[in-house]
Amino acid sequence: MKTRVDAALLNVLARAQDGAPPRLAGALHYAVFPGGARIRPRLCLAVAEACGGDAPALADAVACGLELLHCASLVHDDLPCFDDADLRRGKPSVHRVYGEALAVLVGDGLIVLAFETLARAGVVAPERCVALTATLARAVGATQGLVAGQAWESEPHVPLEQYHRAKTGSLFTAATMAGAMAAGRDPIPWRAMGERLGEAYQVADDLLDALALPDEAGKPTSQDAIRARPNAVATFGVLGAVARLRELVAQAADAVPECPGKGPLRELVLQMAERLVPASLKQSAA
Amino acid sequence: MKTRVDAALLNVLARAQDGAPPRLAGALHYAVFPGGARIRPRLCLAVAEACGGDAPALADAVACGLELLHCASLVHDDLPCFDDADLRRGKPSVHRVYGEALAVLVGDGLIVLAFETLARAGVVAPERCVALTATLARAVGATQGLVAGQAWESEPHVPLEQYHRAKTGSLFTAATMAGAMAAGRDPIPWRAMGERLGEAYQVADDLLDALALPDEAGKPTSQDAIRARPNAVATFGVLGAVARLRELVAQAADAVPECPGKGPLRELVLQMAERLVPASLKQSAA
Repeated sequence: MKTRVDAALLNVLARAQDGAPPRLAGALHYAVFPGGARIRPRLCLAVAEACGGDAPALADAVACGLELLHCASLVHDDLPCFDDADLRRGKPSVHRVYGEALAVLVGDGLIVLAFETLARAGVVAPERCVALTATLARAVGATQGLVAGQAWESEPHVPLEQYHRAKTGSLFTAATMAGAMAAGRDPIPWRAMGERLGEAYQVADDLLDALALPDEAGKPTSQDAIRARPNAVATFGVLGAVARLRELVAQAADAVPECPGKGPLRELVLQMAERLVPASLKQSAA
Repeated sequence: MKTRVDAALLNVLARAQDGAPPRLAGALHYAVFPGGARIRPRLCLAVAEACGGDAPALADAVACGLELLHCASLVHDDLPCFDDADLRRGKPSVHRVYGEALAVLVGDGLIVLAFETLARAGVVAPERCVALTATLARAVGATQGLVAGQAWESEPHVPLEQYHRAKTGSLFTAATMAGAMAAGRDPIPWRAMGERLGEAYQVADDLLDALALPDEAGKPTSQDAIRARPNAVATFGVLGAVARLRELVAQAADAVPECPGKGPLRELVLQMAERLVPASLKQSAA
C-alpha cells in the first residue's frame, strides 16, 4: 500500500515539477520524499478497497491529496514563526535547506496541488469529486481543520478537545470518510473509525515527544514540555498513555463499518496502529 | 458588480469564521475587507453574465475563489521573507497587525477556503465545478500559477515572460475563462482577453510603483527599482508605458468572443481598464 501511495505521489509531483521554477521544483520533491509512514493515504486506500474500490484512480488522487496537505502542514509548522524546527522526518527541514521564502511557497504549492490532483482525477466521477473536495477542504480549513488547529496555538485560551480534533483528528477522519466516498459509499458510518485512529495517533505522537525519542520521531522532541503544550503523557503518565493508545486502537477496529472487506480492514487497522507504539516502549513496557 | 462580489465574499467569510479560533477569524476578515478594486472577480462575473449567466451561484463561488486566492497571495507576498511590506491596500499588512504565524495561516486558510467555496456551490453542476477547480488550481499553482510566479523571484535566472504570465497573468486568464465555464461555455476563446488584461494590469502596477504613488497604490512603491526587478517603465519609459497600457486594453476589448452580451462586456472592459491608468498621470499625460 505504501508502494502504491509513493508511486501515485511520484506521478503527481513529476507533473507539478515539469516547467516549475527549478529550486521550487526541488523543494517540492524534498518536502514529500522520502515520506514518513504515509499513514493517512494508506488508511484512505485501505478503506476504499474494503468498500469495493470501483474507482481506483480517484482513490489514488484523494490519497495523494491527503498526503500533500499533510506535508504542506509540516513544512509550514516547521517555519521559524511556528516551531522553528531544524529536523523533519530525520533530515533538515525545508526552510533550513531552501530558505523561508521557498518553504512558504512549497506549503502553498502543495495545498493547491492537492486540490488540482483531485480535480484532474474527478472528471470520471464529478459528483464524488466535488464531495471529496469539500471533505478535504474542511479537514484542513480555518474553521475546524489543520489551519484552525495550528491557529489555536496562537490563542490565549485553547479548547483542548477542539484543538486536537482540528490539528490531528481532522485528517484521519477525512482519510476514512474520503476512502468510502471515493468508492461511492456513504461516508458517515466511517467517521468514528477515523476519529479513534486520530486520537490514537495523537497519543502516540505525545509519547514520542515526551519520551524524547528523536530517532523514532525524526523531528525535535520534548516540544510539548518546552512549549507547555497539553499532552497525553502529562495527563495519563507513560504507561497510562500506552494503555489509552491500545484502547483507542481497539475501538477503531471495532468501529469498522459493514463492508465487503471488513475482516481484512480490521486486521490492517490493528497492524498499522500497533506500529504507533514506540519501539523502545514495546520492549520496556510490553 | 463590486457590491455583488463583496456580498458573496462576506457570506463566505462569515461561514468560515464561525467556530474558527477568534484571532484567526479576525485576521481572515482583515485580509479580505475592505478590498481593492476586486477586478478579477468582477471580470469573472461580467463574463459569466455576458455568456448567459445560467448558474449565478456557481459564478459567485468561482468569483469569490479568485479573490480569496488573490488575497492569500498578497498576505504571503507581504511576509518578511518576501517583500517585508508594512502597508497593503492603505492599511498595515496582516503580519504587522497579527504577527507572522497568523499571516501564514491566513494565507493557507484563504487558499483552502477558495476551493471549499467552489465545492459547496458545485453540487448543482458537478462537471463544471470539477473543471473550474482545475482551472483555479492551475492559475495559482507551482507550475505556472501565482506560486510559480513568486518562486521565480528566488531563481538566479528569471524568464521574464513566464514570470509575468505566472505572477499576474494567470489569475486574469483564469477570471475570463472561469466566467465562461461557470456559464457552461467553452473557455478557450476567452483566454486571449484575459491575457491582454493581465498584461495591461501588470503595466499599470509597474506605473504605480515607478511613479511612487503610494496613496494610489495602497502599498510601498519604488520596489521594482529597489529590488532591481524588471518593469514596463524601465523598458518603455512613463509615456511609453501608458501608451502600451492603452494598446493592451484595446486588444482586450477586441478579443471579447461572440456571446449574448458582447457589446456591454466590451464597454465594461474599456471602463474597468481605463481606471488602471494612475489618476495623476491622466492629468499630466492626457
